[in-house]
Amino acid sequence: MRIDGRQANELRNVQIETDYIKHPEGSVLITMGDTKVICSASVENKVPPFMRGEGKGWVTAEYAMLPRATERRNIRESSKGKVTGRTMEIQRLIGRALRAVIDLNKLGERTIWVDCDVIQADGGTRTASITGAFVAMSLACSKLLKEKVINEMPIQQYLAAISVGLSDNKEPLLDLQYVEDAAAAVDMNVVMTEANEFVELQGTGEEATFTPDQLNEMIQLAQKGVKELFDIQKDALGDDAALI
Amino acid sequence: MRIDGRQANELRNVQIETDYIKHPEGSVLITMGDTKVICSASVENKVPPFMRGEGKGWVTAEYAMLPRATERRNIRESSKGKVTGRTMEIQRLIGRALRAVIDLNKLGERTIWVDCDVIQADGGTRTASITGAFVAMSLACSKLLKEKVINEMPIQQYLAAISVGLSDNKEPLLDLQYVEDAAAAVDMNVVMTEANEFVELQGTGEEATFTPDQLNEMIQLAQKGVKELFDIQKDALGDDAALI
Amino acid sequence: MRIDGRQANELRNVQIETDYIKHPEGSVLITMGDTKVICSASVENKVPPFMRGEGKGWVTAEYAMLPRATERRNIRESSKGKVTGRTMEIQRLIGRALRAVIDLNKLGERTIWVDCDVIQADGGTRTASITGAFVAMSLACSKLLKEKVINEMPIQQYLAAISVGLSDNKEPLLDLQYVEDAAAAVDMNVVMTEANEFVELQGTGEEATFTPDQLNEMIQLAQKGVKELFDIQKDALGDDAALI
Amino acid sequence: MRIDGRQANELRNVQIETDYIKHPEGSVLITMGDTKVICSASVENKVPPFMRGEGKGWVTAEYAMLPRATERRNIRESSKGKVTGRTMEIQRLIGRALRAVIDLNKLGERTIWVDCDVIQADGGTRTASITGAFVAMSLACSKLLKEKVINEMPIQQYLAAISVGLSDNKEPLLDLQYVEDAAAAVDMNVVMTEANEFVELQGTGEEATFTPDQLNEMIQLAQKGVKELFDIQKDALGDDAALI
Amino acid sequence: MRIDGRQANELRNVQIETDYIKHPEGSVLITMGDTKVICSASVENKVPPFMRGEGKGWVTAEYAMLPRATERRNIRESSKGKVTGRTMEIQRLIGRALRAVIDLNKLGERTIWVDCDVIQADGGTRTASITGAFVAMSLACSKLLKEKVINEMPIQQYLAAISVGLSDNKEPLLDLQYVEDAAAAVDMNVVMTEANEFVELQGTGEEATFTPDQLNEMIQLAQKGVKELFDIQKDALGDDAALI
Amino acid sequence: MRIDGRQANELRNVQIETDYIKHPEGSVLITMGDTKVICSASVENKVPPFMRGEGKGWVTAEYAMLPRATERRNIRESSKGKVTGRTMEIQRLIGRALRAVIDLNKLGERTIWVDCDVIQADGGTRTASITGAFVAMSLACSKLLKEKVINEMPIQQYLAAISVGLSDNKEPLLDLQYVEDAAAAVDMNVVMTEANEFVELQGTGEEATFTPDQLNEMIQLAQKGVKELFDIQKDALGDDAALI
Repeated sequence: MRIDGRQANELRNVQIETDYIKHPEGSVLITMGDTKVICSASVENKVPPFMRGEGKGWVTAEYAMLPRATERRNIRESSKGKVTGRTMEIQRLIGRALRAVIDLNKLGERTIWVDCDVIQADGGTRTASITGAFVAMSLACSKLLKEKVINEMPIQQYLAAISVGLSDNKEPLLDLQYVEDAAAAVDMNVVMTEANEFVELQGTGEEATFTPDQLNEMIQLAQKGVKELFDIQKDALGDDAALI
Repeated sequence: MRIDGRQANELRNVQIETDYIKHPEGSVLITMGDTKVICSASVENKVPPFMRGEGKGWVTAEYAMLPRATERRNIRESSKGKVTGRTMEIQRLIGRALRAVIDLNKLGERTIWVDCDVIQADGGTRTASITGAFVAMSLACSKLLKEKVINEMPIQQYLAAISVGLSDNKEPLLDLQYVEDAAAAVDMNVVMTEANEFVELQGTGEEATFTPDQLNEMIQLAQKGVKELFDIQKDALGDDAALI
Repeated sequence: MRIDGRQANELRNVQIETDYIKHPEGSVLITMGDTKVICSASVENKVPPFMRGEGKGWVTAEYAMLPRATERRNIRESSKGKVTGRTMEIQRLIGRALRAVIDLNKLGERTIWVDCDVIQADGGTRTASITGAFVAMSLACSKLLKEKVINEMPIQQYLAAISVGLSDNKEPLLDLQYVEDAAAAVDMNVVMTEANEFVELQGTGEEATFTPDQLNEMIQLAQKGVKELFDIQKDALGDDAALI
Repeated sequence: MRIDGRQANELRNVQIETDYIKHPEGSVLITMGDTKVICSASVENKVPPFMRGEGKGWVTAEYAMLPRATERRNIRESSKGKVTGRTMEIQRLIGRALRAVIDLNKLGERTIWVDCDVIQADGGTRTASITGAFVAMSLACSKLLKEKVINEMPIQQYLAAISVGLSDNKEPLLDLQYVEDAAAAVDMNVVMTEANEFVELQGTGEEATFTPDQLNEMIQLAQKGVKELFDIQKDALGDDAALI
Repeated sequence: MRIDGRQANELRNVQIETDYIKHPEGSVLITMGDTKVICSASVENKVPPFMRGEGKGWVTAEYAMLPRATERRNIRESSKGKVTGRTMEIQRLIGRALRAVIDLNKLGERTIWVDCDVIQADGGTRTASITGAFVAMSLACSKLLKEKVINEMPIQQYLAAISVGLSDNKEPLLDLQYVEDAAAAVDMNVVMTEANEFVELQGTGEEATFTPDQLNEMIQLAQKGVKELFDIQKDALGDDAALI
Repeated sequence: MRIDGRQANELRNVQIETDYIKHPEGSVLITMGDTKVICSASVENKVPPFMRGEGKGWVTAEYAMLPRATERRNIRESSKGKVTGRTMEIQRLIGRALRAVIDLNKLGERTIWVDCDVIQADGGTRTASITGAFVAMSLACSKLLKEKVINEMPIQQYLAAISVGLSDNKEPLLDLQYVEDAAAAVDMNVVMTEANEFVELQGTGEEATFTPDQLNEMIQLAQKGVKELFDIQKDALGDDAALI
């Protein structure tokens, strides 16, 4: 049994509260155990210079943590004057994942800025960000559709992400909280669609390695996890769930 | 009557929720109308280089807004690679204000980092930050006292802040929300102690001027406002209120 | 009696030398005791992007100190690669103050860049900068008017600034030099127009507080000080004084 | 058949020239088709601050491209004043991969800086960097061992990396050159040890997805590829190959 | 006799390998003793903003060293976030020198970006860069001419550069390698044309001085050196040599 | 005859006003025609990290221009967040030149920071800076000597600098003012000692070249110019002149 009493294949308690802040076109607070992320989707009526005139839209993501979201306070990236490599990796991942399930032609020449701000961190912040960001982006698109700014729903299918890993003694675990993550031999982030296809797969042996069999076990755990997350996303979207 | 039905001398609905996030030694979510700020106080067991060896502590503040806390999305300061002049002004103000009511000798060689992160903005974010930050800092000090890390409460008296202004037609108003602030001829931020003394007074005629009489009227409104805020701070602190 | 023999309500020796450097449209060297600031006003025939096409002008200010303007040498901000919070606060203050007394419509789509460079510092550099910058800006506007680039004088009234404070034993003092400023319990900068109205009022208790009565005393001292500065500005402007 | 006449499961021509530059403790020029990378390993007799006093070593990597390594000239990162997200991702990946096969205790309190500088790019620069960097790091360790600076070889097993992908029509391909990579639906980088275990696995559907079966096909191609690379590394290392 | 057996007036072994990398319009690897520099010339079909619409071209240069080109590893300028003063001086020198022998009108509204990347450093990197960059730029211009993008060869005459110096005991030396350079009392870089005219002359007494007679001696050595370099450049250019 | 009526071999009116600002250990305002530079020398009781414990001192220089020292306003380097290549070149030149005439052993473990701030620019700012900086540094050293902080005068001989050039029609000119400099075919800066030896020689053909004979003519003009400058420096130093 795990430190918080969960089974190896069990998600933490997940909640998605929609319309969490008032200004963005779509926003949620996603809670996975003690990890809490505010995801907002902001629509801007133009695209980056390299895409102008193509009639297509763009989706880009930014990720940050409040300085004391973590056990020890981190220096703000704005004070450091630069964004860390970890932050860049994560926001590039979130952006790529979201773009895999949206038809940018149907969005028109608009940019959706997705901001994922971690209020409290306890492991799995990048996967929670993707799962929450998908809902925020869907809410923003529903709004554009209802207001007839666009004619068709650009979101093509559900998208969710989860972390899996191998514990120190090589047991596969689903949805690692921080202490499990810190002790893990292998850490893997899996981003999937409802059609059981991969969008991103990132497995890292932290000064360790893993076999092809262990890879398979971890992937099966992840498939179970994202299936449950799709249901939670649909609940959160309510009537808008049917638009996708 | 004002746009939201308030009297000229009436505060917005104010709430202070303590222990809002789990890692910091003290934290609150302060809500004033639609303005929401997470204030956290983090204790570090060292002081900046210029103060080492003096046996005294230090309090410093940082302030930021989520990109979509506002009507239009702002570029993150970490992406710009620098902190704006407005942010610097505000965080210097918050730090100075908090240091005016704490006995740094009683704190010992420790730094309290106060982070004010605006989740949603609708005017008065810097004054809400000070009012909330005071409570977060007090909670952190109470914790140090209860855990016998320090022997005496370093907080010496209550501190709160409020904005006042002159409307376009020169009527004094208390606690301006964003649309009032944008239209105001004069904008003033007042930071006071419970002994009815000033800690900071910053009045700015935005392409306008104000007379000594108007200054007096605004100051009286501010005094009424902070008096109400002290009661709300005490309610939020509960049993810890008596320690100050 | 004060350290340099002045009365509590007495200004230091003030001199304003016009046309101090040859390239700018207006320039002065302002001397207040040992504080010396070169203020120059440069006219550029365009406005910032956010103002284009409105037919209005803009005034913006920058402030800096030579590295050895002070007792100890400061690192250049260009070497540090960023402007400090103190510098940003001051240059924002100077710009706001100047914009309060100029009719930007009469300026047309032009920007006046006001540069305040402190050659030697002995307290009161930001208020000396405003008092000197007003003269430099007026000279530049007179030049535009005489050369018929503009049709009406955009400067609407005189503007000057002075520092006041409370000494350690709470005595109000006018025009603090550096050693007085460093020891002061309260430091206040007051920017006023000739009509006895406030443009900016910034009072700071440096780890101290001040009462409403002390606020009034300081304001009366400031009113006396700026009145004397208006006369010195008019002398410096000579024939151009009548244009305002 | 592929654009350059290769089979789907065929590597490009690979060459590893050792001691390519004279100053570093280990260096190679690795050539994979038209991709050319200089990898150098520099030994420094200290470790980063967070590791001091533990008696362990550290390995860190940096990655860059000459401005005209690519079809179109890229702006230098030193001119931009910051490292891009792509560069950060790659250098973090190289460093993690190398640390997975070295016993940092046997290295002692030393840092190995691995620099991968792409002279000419034609796809697969990050995997070529890892394969080459492993050899450069091994040469540097052999040198330390022969000079009796260390007592045991810290390199524990062979490490190589290769890219695989799915073409536009979903055919699995080994070792993608640039035009194939640009057209690929899925791009995967696989880092493996000689024991057929994974160190890193990063699969990305570029606005596309992939099934569990396709994942398996790509992994089998990668296993074939790295097996061939291990032989080429051993040839390059010559007598030193036996030390690992 | 010198440390490597050369006479005082003898160049090191010089080789210029053309078309060293495939993407640039012109590229060389220049080797002078153990100093190796990749020089590439990239043509861009536009000019900097300050030159647009004049029908003239521009030539600009950038210079960098691989971190371990030198005896001790240098921190990358991209990691530092800024270019050092030494690098700026060198790249400004290279650009000025190249522009002295090209007719920018004949180039049309195009920019030639010349990149000099030092792979291995052993003294004289800036002069080797100029000598190599001239050949790379000439190759790029020949290509434009052969492809009829331009009608006339813009290169007007040959250009080469060499270092000379005074040893510790004031003996004039040609083409200093690193250990000679580090010990030299005076270091001079001379850039000349085939017509025996100077383009740049930079002599520096490193905590030493030099007389007018010593200046003359050094200049004569330099004239001998560049004469030999012109022959090597012509050999390298082959058939293209006749176009200049 | 030249634009301002001077002969080809005539300096502009030169004045050196000592003790121009009160805080630095040595300071001057040097005026050459319309070029005005404040040079200050600040003594710090430590040396840079790479020199500690050697018992030797260090001299370093910084150079800047007020934004409107020039015909058109320049953006402040602190606002740009970086120092330009031109500034770096100049401040490196000033520092090297000064170090050539000071015995750093006699200075002890102290740094002299020399700041050259151009108040008004009309050509020749770098050479005026060196000539003025020499006097400021000498004053600072005299002060250390008189206060018995050091035992011997570390300044070993006089140092001055002047610009020379070739006009458009190849006439050699001494001490170019801005309009002459902008039109010049060749621009040369010469730094010399009183013993008629060179410290630095930097000649640049701006899209032009120069012959060995023209070089000689320019050098003779420069020798005449610095001779006159040494007299002016001695007058300015007064009694302190005898200490060198």
